[in-house]
Amino acid sequence: MKERGILTVISGFSGAGKGTLVKKLISEYDNYSLSISMTTRAPRPGEENGVSYFFIDRESFERNIENGLMLEHAEYQGNYYGTPKEYVEQQLASGRDVILEIEYLGAFQVKKMMPEALLLFVTPPSAEELLRRLRGRNTETEEQIRGRMRRAIEEAVIVDRYEYILLNDDLDTCVRETHEIIQNAKYSVSRNAAFIDQIRKELHELKD
Amino acid sequence: MKERGILTVISGFSGAGKGTLVKKLISEYDNYSLSISMTTRAPRPGEENGVSYFFIDRESFERNIENGLMLEHAEYQGNYYGTPKEYVEQQLASGRDVILEIEYLGAFQVKKMMPEALLLFVTPPSAEELLRRLRGRNTETEEQIRGRMRRAIEEAVIVDRYEYILLNDDLDTCVRETHEIIQNAKYSVSRNAAFIDQIRKELHELKD
Repeated sequence: MKERGILTVISGFSGAGKGTLVKKLISEYDNYSLSISMTTRAPRPGEENGVSYFFIDRESFERNIENGLMLEHAEYQGNYYGTPKEYVEQQLASGRDVILEIEYLGAFQVKKMMPEALLLFVTPPSAEELLRRLRGRNTETEEQIRGRMRRAIEEAVIVDRYEYILLNDDLDTCVRETHEIIQNAKYSVSRNAAFIDQIRKELHELKD
Repeated sequence: MKERGILTVISGFSGAGKGTLVKKLISEYDNYSLSISMTTRAPRPGEENGVSYFFIDRESFERNIENGLMLEHAEYQGNYYGTPKEYVEQQLASGRDVILEIEYLGAFQVKKMMPEALLLFVTPPSAEELLRRLRGRNTETEEQIRGRMRRAIEEAVIVDRYEYILLNDDLDTCVRETHEIIQNAKYSVSRNAAFIDQIRKELHELKD
């Protein structure tokens, strides 16, 4: 019915475990491609172009934006980060499902450019659990953790614009459910306008 | 996250195999209750009250409608048919998922009364296959089959108001996908307003 892949945007509270979720999803099922971001920041030791990021200069990045070649982009600490459209398009056209792990401003830019994108939001079972996970990392100051909690309040405001919540309580369960939600999106009415039009046309031809 | 059951309305082209699909879904998974319709038509030999239908007189049925006790109803060949709200509500409240197999006018009445209802539409892979299945039954005249095809044209117009298409090509696959779609609906953002509000509240309490 639908051979083009599904573009899925995964966002979530910082500390919800979305990085781990995405990594496990991609390693367990072979139909997913992870989108590679483009950035103007300098490569860190060991980072290879086209693997962790596409590294590009500022002028070229700005030209890409102007030419509509970026699905989404943002500036962060003086550098551009974004998602080049071409790779995503190629993957989708070849029938692969593409995963984009980005924050909500980017997610809404993507949804605007590609309304068929599926927006998923990862959350722990409760805010207390979120705080517990953030503290459990032992890598951040209490001030940084408080910053993340304030950010979570902001994110909780806009979560209504996502389609599904991924409740990350047990990771394996969450990975399986995420996979099912993405695969079943292929059957959503809004993503099957072409199939529905085809059936309508055929019915008219066969009616007499 | 969501303990209340999901109410699923299943409609579909006549000949799409929705009866078989619903029967198999209910026998394979034990979380589903099939809603029992109410009717004013006389019981046929072997039909037991509360099993195939709730049998009721015309006056009582009309009183039920007036008192808002019916989720949906229609008149067909001089008899009322409809879905009593109470049984559905009881099942949902106890955490069971309820399946309603009804046509589209009923489906939209249900959606209006219970916006959280999940609307699924069963279709064969093509209109040709639909016609082939209708003819393969060998129980109807060519004129009756043509009537069903005209009806299908009508249904194809309103399929946009459903959420998912169930492509009934291979029955076992379709049963499994239907189950997944219903179970995953529990994670849709629109069905989790209470959980989202709870997280928002907790985040505010924990932020300092």
